[in-house]
Amino acid sequence: MEVGLALLNVSDIADAAKRLLLGRPVRSDHLGHTLLPKRIALPVFASDALSSVAYAPDEILLTLAVAGFTATTISPWVGLAVVLVMITVVASYRQNVHAYPSGGGDYEVATKNLGKNSGVAVASALMVDYVLTVAVSISSGAQYAASAIPALRDHEAQFAIGLVVLLTIANLRGVKESGKFFAVPVYLFMFAIGLTAVVGFVRSVSGNLPMAESAGFELVAQPGFDEGIMGFAGAFLIARAFASGCAALTGVEAISNGVPAFQKPKSKNAATTLALLGGISAVMIMVILFLAKLTGVHYAENPHEQLIANGQPLPLDYVQHPVIGQLAEAVFRGFPFAFYAVSAVTGVILVLAANTAFNGFPVLGSILAKDGYLPRQLHTRGDRLAFSNGILTLAAGAIILIWAFDAQVTRLIQLYIVGVFVSFTLSQLGMVRHWTDGLRTETDPKVRAQMGRSRMVNGLGLVMTGTVLIIVLLTKFTHGAWIALLAMAFLFVLMKAIRKHYDVVSAELALGEDPSASRALPSRVHAIVLVSKLHKPTMRAISYARASRPNTLEAITVGVDAEDIARLTALWETLDLPVPLRVLDSPFREITRPILSYVRSIRRESPRDLVVVYIPEYVVGHWWEQLLHNQSALRLKGRLLFTPGVVVASVPWQLSSTKGQTGLEGTSYVEKQRRIGY
Amino acid sequence: MEVGLALLNVSDIADAAKRLLLGRPVRSDHLGHTLLPKRIALPVFASDALSSVAYAPDEILLTLAVAGFTATTISPWVGLAVVLVMITVVASYRQNVHAYPSGGGDYEVATKNLGKNSGVAVASALMVDYVLTVAVSISSGAQYAASAIPALRDHEAQFAIGLVVLLTIANLRGVKESGKFFAVPVYLFMFAIGLTAVVGFVRSVSGNLPMAESAGFELVAQPGFDEGIMGFAGAFLIARAFASGCAALTGVEAISNGVPAFQKPKSKNAATTLALLGGISAVMIMVILFLAKLTGVHYAENPHEQLIANGQPLPLDYVQHPVIGQLAEAVFRGFPFAFYAVSAVTGVILVLAANTAFNGFPVLGSILAKDGYLPRQLHTRGDRLAFSNGILTLAAGAIILIWAFDAQVTRLIQLYIVGVFVSFTLSQLGMVRHWTDGLRTETDPKVRAQMGRSRMVNGLGLVMTGTVLIIVLLTKFTHGAWIALLAMAFLFVLMKAIRKHYDVVSAELALGEDPSASRALPSRVHAIVLVSKLHKPTMRAISYARASRPNTLEAITVGVDAEDIARLTALWETLDLPVPLRVLDSPFREITRPILSYVRSIRRESPRDLVVVYIPEYVVGHWWEQLLHNQSALRLKGRLLFTPGVVVASVPWQLSSTKGQTGLEGTSYVEKQRRIGY
Repeated sequence: MEVGLALLNVSDIADAAKRLLLGRPVRSDHLGHTLLPKRIALPVFASDALSSVAYAPDEILLTLAVAGFTATTISPWVGLAVVLVMITVVASYRQNVHAYPSGGGDYEVATKNLGKNSGVAVASALMVDYVLTVAVSISSGAQYAASAIPALRDHEAQFAIGLVVLLTIANLRGVKESGKFFAVPVYLFMFAIGLTAVVGFVRSVSGNLPMAESAGFELVAQPGFDEGIMGFAGAFLIARAFASGCAALTGVEAISNGVPAFQKPKSKNAATTLALLGGISAVMIMVILFLAKLTGVHYAENPHEQLIANGQPLPLDYVQHPVIGQLAEAVFRGFPFAFYAVSAVTGVILVLAANTAFNGFPVLGSILAKDGYLPRQLHTRGDRLAFSNGILTLAAGAIILIWAFDAQVTRLIQLYIVGVFVSFTLSQLGMVRHWTDGLRTETDPKVRAQMGRSRMVNGLGLVMTGTVLIIVLLTKFTHGAWIALLAMAFLFVLMKAIRKHYDVVSAELALGEDPSASRALPSRVHAIVLVSKLHKPTMRAISYARASRPNTLEAITVGVDAEDIARLTALWETLDLPVPLRVLDSPFREITRPILSYVRSIRRESPRDLVVVYIPEYVVGHWWEQLLHNQSALRLKGRLLFTPGVVVASVPWQLSSTKGQTGLEGTSYVEKQRRIGY
Repeated sequence: MEVGLALLNVSDIADAAKRLLLGRPVRSDHLGHTLLPKRIALPVFASDALSSVAYAPDEILLTLAVAGFTATTISPWVGLAVVLVMITVVASYRQNVHAYPSGGGDYEVATKNLGKNSGVAVASALMVDYVLTVAVSISSGAQYAASAIPALRDHEAQFAIGLVVLLTIANLRGVKESGKFFAVPVYLFMFAIGLTAVVGFVRSVSGNLPMAESAGFELVAQPGFDEGIMGFAGAFLIARAFASGCAALTGVEAISNGVPAFQKPKSKNAATTLALLGGISAVMIMVILFLAKLTGVHYAENPHEQLIANGQPLPLDYVQHPVIGQLAEAVFRGFPFAFYAVSAVTGVILVLAANTAFNGFPVLGSILAKDGYLPRQLHTRGDRLAFSNGILTLAAGAIILIWAFDAQVTRLIQLYIVGVFVSFTLSQLGMVRHWTDGLRTETDPKVRAQMGRSRMVNGLGLVMTGTVLIIVLLTKFTHGAWIALLAMAFLFVLMKAIRKHYDVVSAELALGEDPSASRALPSRVHAIVLVSKLHKPTMRAISYARASRPNTLEAITVGVDAEDIARLTALWETLDLPVPLRVLDSPFREITRPILSYVRSIRRESPRDLVVVYIPEYVVGHWWEQLLHNQSALRLKGRLLFTPGVVVASVPWQLSSTKGQTGLEGTSYVEKQRRIGY
């Protein structure tokens, strides 16, 4: 049952719609209270990073394909460059996890070392990142699904949006996957790629590796690249391919946010897991690129324009499978099951990667709210609604992107990488500053040496990520990166504005030098009970008002309908109520103005007195009942509060639909906790 | 400035968005307080009815065109049949306005004479009607605009939606057109059609009437109609054309809703205006159909499929102008200005017709809310938000229809007529019942004769409208009328459910036989002040709580952050506050559960006592500040209200952004009233 909140806010409507769909949602903080051993932590944190292996090599190949096939033969070198950056970044982040084991991640590093503005900049980049993680991962998953299931072709965007909706519902229900739930698909994925690689290389060595299905095609070089990749255009293209390949690095920083979840020694285990992650990622990328070269994969962004078969355009119904799919099909030719299995496993890991964003985004929101950069209610734990807002925002952003870019992974990647490398670069810069500050004060030579080494690693990481960032900006700005930058700028400005507002209000509310000035006690209390009909809630309001023993007490009603008023006053007399009833005039059938005027008149006569207005309020059991009750009373209350010296007391009447509800529905730890496995 | 309501509801968000667009909205009840002379009342009430002349003849012609050109030659006869129905309906409604001068309209007639269910059915039909009035009128207006402005062609739907948005904004601002604003375009329209007719007939008689631009085409009879309109198919087609032509009757009942606006003698003037309206409408329809026949207009729903020129299909860029447009072009050949002028004037009157729906829909909503069929807050006068909800709902419905049917008038008409004739028929049935009941008790023979005559007229009207309703259902059900019926059924069920809910709650809340049972006074009052930080609002809450002189008083805070708590208790001691501070434990950083548990524990110990919880609440001046403050406090308050014997007192702190606001913003009569003309 929806908690019968006595107000209707947007979250309530979303929540209500959710309940309509889902029944009673559940939430648990299971993961937050169980520490993970490395063998479980690896899959939990690796899904995001490893999943980018599903699209990064493809991006390298199709970017190079613009210059014709000869260009694609250098793909392993591009991959090596990406691996080099990855190793550097992994090494750098190993410093991060040791220096900041609290799990604050890049935001904490930037804020503590570079200042608030850098922190907010990193936060904006991370938020844009999360949205793009969902959009890219789900779009890529839809691509794999469509390559295996013909019915989905040309409907990838709808399928992707449907997946996002399902993920949203699952996360709103608070179904928290346990580590085991993550472990199986991730290990399966590693196994699948690994097996494909091993079998592929064995067959290649023994000479019977089949060619990929696209090996027979020719890649048509686009205008400007007739000479392959020589010249400035070619160099630019290689840079673009490299920048796209760096999408493989997304997700590496996730571990720095999750250090507290590791078993002790936390930092060491986190660093080890990071190294494992980097190694496995790097190996996978190189393996895929090599195998693609060995099997002669021809992969292009627009296959029907860039590929020809025997001098003829491709048949219209030709469907280009993702590279991993083509590899599986070639290596395991004759066992079509392998193609479907590999595609399925890749699809699952992509969905898991998107899901980590759904977990991380609200946590980031909570941290930012604590620092006053987002509305404070996002910081409140124990209330499912706070997290729900974050989940819904993330889903909305991802859906808009998927729809706007028609679930095209290549186009979405253009936006993806810039945010990732902004936070990488600022994070490394922050670490360098961290070590520099440490070196300034540290005296122990052994620790100084350690700091110096760490600083060098982070410095190298800074140079690397900074360079990649510049390359990404140069090569991708016009291709869509400007959208991501615009979104980051918007979030930056918004969060600074929110913080400024909170700061201004804080100053306004702070106790002055003379706190006793705020202690002036009102001398008398005038109580007013608002009456519309004479029913049980009214009687209760009168009782409670009398119980508080005010100096004066009267009941107020507004004379909207003459008949109703006559009936009311007659009934009042009959019941001989001890409270006098005053009828306010209202020629235009409105209730707000007469009541407000009357209250203000009381205040004007006695400015030192307190006016307490008792308003009956219905407490409802179903969300839709809120639409039918209380609205006028709540609006009146809102306007009453504008008058200084007025207190509005809500006297609740619990409708029978609230039977059995305590008000604690929707808070954590009271709900049944549903767990999957573990 | 938006009233700083202490809650965030959906209306607030819509309202906020409105303010973003519009600045400070305005509202006046000008029209409700000035009585209209007939010469102003006619255009005000006639715009809806006369505007249907812009599409009804077209519908007759294009429906008959399905059977080839010979069929269209009988169009004047079909028009005559429509005129016959119109005369009957006008005569019937003249009885309505005399019998029910209060302006309740069809809803009142049905409710009072046929019972509540019929009333709700009529209300559902009227609501669907209003939405379709906007959709059809605006779509038709877009059609005229596109016929005159080439740039709009193929973008009629977007243009139409843009028009609806503009109308919505204008109505939300409360810009209320005066009678003069209506009068000019309506009289211009009548003049334009009249001049076209006169000049056309004069030229025809003198033998030099040019043929319409489409006169040279041939109409290809569709399959099944090779023999023209003989046989069953032909008869059915004629019935369909007649049913479509009855769209000309839409808007006739508007006067029955507006009788109170006439000058005295109200009923007589309203009846006269109605007769004028009917006459002018009828003349216009016949004139248009005759002229179309004289000028040889060939008009089809799909001109490129149904029309051929010299045995060849039409050129792809041929644009079919609406019939009125073709008549103006032909009659005033050589003066292209005439075509544009007539098209413009027709477009304006269509927009005005849509606007009357924006005025009428919220009024209907208000009446239904008063009877408990819609949420009660829609009945509240003096609060602009109530009407805004109605306007936004209407706009949303119209936009969805325009988008779904691509602004195609012919397809929308299929939905339009059924709702209109449902309310006509039920209204006439109610009137017949009304006179029958009157005849049962009336003794004066003169009055009896009058009643008898009226009953006959209404009876004839009933037969006519009932017949048309059956024809409409038979001919249009599968073409789209089922959508309208489904919507009506949905609204019917919804409104009955709302009424049932209110009835059930009313019974639950009614005072029992022993009202003194509700008078039990709590013996003691425990006051609790919720403290998060020690700032001015907290000090005020403490002061007010002390001023109310409770039996016990303590301050409560939840121990979320150890540092904050230490600081708070230290400050509390320093300031030597007279209220003890209690810190509640909270291991998981949530605030709701500890507070709720504590309050419930107090109640458990002393079930007869009252617990008053004082919560500081920020009163904000800008709508967006609501997103940043109060949310957690309000949710907590909502949950607290679930506990019996608890009163939540909101202690307001007016932020500086509220400077200058009184709380009366947004209520009527305080705002500057903007008028146009009159």
